Amino acid sequence: MSRLRGRMVIAQGGGPTAVINQSLVGAVLESRKFPDITDVWGALHGVRGIVNETFVSLSEATTHNLERVAQTPSSALGSTRDKPDAEYCHRIFNVFRKHDVRYFFYIGGNDSSDTVRIVNEQADQEGYELRAIHIPKTVDNDLPVNDHCPGYPSAARFVTCAISGVNADNNALSGVYIAVIMGRHAGWLTAAAALARKHDDDGPHLVYVPERQFSIDRYLGDIDRVYQQHGRCIVALSEGVWATRNEKGKEIPLAADLMSKAGREPQVDAHGNIQLSGGALADELADIVQKRLNIKRVRSDTFGYLQRSFPGVVSSIDACEAREVGEKAAHYACRHNVDGSVVIKRIGNYAVKYELARLTDIAAKTRRLPDEYINADGNHVSDAFCNYLRPLLGDDLPCLERLSAPVARVG
Amino acid sequence: MSRLRGRMVIAQGGGPTAVINQSLVGAVLESRKFPDITDVWGALHGVRGIVNETFVSLSEATTHNLERVAQTPSSALGSTRDKPDAEYCHRIFNVFRKHDVRYFFYIGGNDSSDTVRIVNEQADQEGYELRAIHIPKTVDNDLPVNDHCPGYPSAARFVTCAISGVNADNNALSGVYIAVIMGRHAGWLTAAAALARKHDDDGPHLVYVPERQFSIDRYLGDIDRVYQQHGRCIVALSEGVWATRNEKGKEIPLAADLMSKAGREPQVDAHGNIQLSGGALADELADIVQKRLNIKRVRSDTFGYLQRSFPGVVSSIDACEAREVGEKAAHYACRHNVDGSVVIKRIGNYAVKYELARLTDIAAKTRRLPDEYINADGNHVSDAFCNYLRPLLGDDLPCLERLSAPVARVG
Repeated sequence: MSRLRGRMVIAQGGGPTAVINQSLVGAVLESRKFPDITDVWGALHGVRGIVNETFVSLSEATTHNLERVAQTPSSALGSTRDKPDAEYCHRIFNVFRKHDVRYFFYIGGNDSSDTVRIVNEQADQEGYELRAIHIPKTVDNDLPVNDHCPGYPSAARFVTCAISGVNADNNALSGVYIAVIMGRHAGWLTAAAALARKHDDDGPHLVYVPERQFSIDRYLGDIDRVYQQHGRCIVALSEGVWATRNEKGKEIPLAADLMSKAGREPQVDAHGNIQLSGGALADELADIVQKRLNIKRVRSDTFGYLQRSFPGVVSSIDACEAREVGEKAAHYACRHNVDGSVVIKRIGNYAVKYELARLTDIAAKTRRLPDEYINADGNHVSDAFCNYLRPLLGDDLPCLERLSAPVARVG
Repeated sequence: MSRLRGRMVIAQGGGPTAVINQSLVGAVLESRKFPDITDVWGALHGVRGIVNETFVSLSEATTHNLERVAQTPSSALGSTRDKPDAEYCHRIFNVFRKHDVRYFFYIGGNDSSDTVRIVNEQADQEGYELRAIHIPKTVDNDLPVNDHCPGYPSAARFVTCAISGVNADNNALSGVYIAVIMGRHAGWLTAAAALARKHDDDGPHLVYVPERQFSIDRYLGDIDRVYQQHGRCIVALSEGVWATRNEKGKEIPLAADLMSKAGREPQVDAHGNIQLSGGALADELADIVQKRLNIKRVRSDTFGYLQRSFPGVVSSIDACEAREVGEKAAHYACRHNVDGSVVIKRIGNYAVKYELARLTDIAAKTRRLPDEYINADGNHVSDAFCNYLRPLLGDDLPCLERLSAPVARVG
């Protein structure tokens, strides 16, 4: 197959991350070097920008502007939650044909990779030559094949820093503190709380992830035990924890359950995901501790949207890798003339290499925390998980130090 | 009055901040230089540590340890919400006499300054020579006389960064976003959201503070107007906003009202403050927008405890000034041999000087946002406020840049 000549279109899908623009800028700057790419277009608001033909000419963005955009969190081109079906993909494909688009890069998570797969298959069926590359990003870290996904290390750094600050706060004014952290089906981000521990009595003392069934009674028993021992307790818990299944065996998130009971209608997006945001879960889990364990000072926070796009809380490793997966997309498409999903493989401790996986191996699949990353009691993570995450958090983690001073003799 | 010779006791009271340990370390290192101070003791958990006689010998902490503690958020000595009455202060005073304590430094907010005042008055009455200094700190920024309070600039930086990230997120996936920010009686911290604006259409589009009565109808009208104009809307709102007064004319926080309706009992601390934390206010304010304005994507977050002790999100100005008010406490007590509260005065744009105010001018008083910092409609802050806050946020604010690329011609 000879190298293709024509336009390139790049877009961003799904939830923003702190480093998704690094991938955008890596792909754009690298693509602009290839003479076969006649134009680099950005589609506004993901696939919707393609069918609406709302494009900006990234060939005409200055490198200075792009380099500053790369440091900016969230999706500079805008995003979408649209989930294209075959008909939608056909419209995408028609726009590509109309504008002689021969390269399509889509930066996104599970659903976005599925979009790339369908568009790519359609092009094959119609004999239209197109290079289609999925560039990974997700704070959820749940794409298969990858060691980890760009966006996750920075979100994990936010969670680690937040919990270490909260731990210092809770050490000064003791009580029970419950943090509700993003993670619908997988506990990767919640597990990052564990890296906040430095001393043996530091929080989080308990970590609950959606990979294990949640039980209020075990939760209360766990907190009671920790509180007896330390006089305080910090809990990190995924928004997606579930205690029951419906008649079809589907896990029902506790948060959705509570929203229904409170008379709120949880929203459901095009991908069938129930909205889990809001503070009801944290409030309820604090309230039950206060009432059932009779502990006076019980506080809770829902980390919410802050954890995925907080400016300045970025893992240096993540920023580099996000940039590189963008650049590699250009190499695979323009030099190697192949389609697929760029993946990160870990080699050594710590280094990575990039490979191209088949779109069918990535698309619409979810990777949950493996068993060896969760402790036997299902209420914390393992050392293996901490070893996995530590290098990803990047350089210059904030200093947290306790006073080291002898007790004064007052007798 | 000759210079006093004896022990020094330092303690920390109230809610932690990101820089309160800078003040601790500034005071400790500077005090250790004065030969008249025979010992530097830290009381654990504020005034409670004094009456319980739980002290650590800070004369024996290494400078390396102290310098690292200075960079650590939250109160390294532990804190307390105890509000000493005359009897409690008498016990404090007795412990001081027992251990020949001649210098007392207390780092805290409104209530802590009142404690220093009472202890000082008691010493006067009993003819016991004691130098008592209040060192200011509060994320609420509501101490009188001061231009601003240590701890506030870093918390303000957190809020500014958070809202600028959320603004970028909301620009990518549009909708209505409501942030509930700390501030019981004063809107200083909520107002900091305004510094996130760079472009005319950036959020926050609306800012509500407890200095103005809140009305759900005006709130909905404001959001409707912004949403019509921009297709999205970001709201920053103080946890302490109130819509009604009780029969005694006291403002009843909306959050406390909602907690009661939800069957939760809001806690009341020793200072008579009702607990405002929890997600109910944010949930309710999002729900009402969704239902009454029929807007699909409405999200809300309660910033909660993250905003006061997030490691690494520190204003460089704040860190310096917090350090200096600690050092100045030692100078006023040891060199000038006087009592009072260290205050920050702004001179020029931007520089400060430190003075010593009378404890009675600071103690238990609250400074709210002045009228000129709030806009005429009571739904945003003024340019004067932005000019006031900008230098306090410190150096190296994160970069947030939009793509600057021409629309591609598709016709």
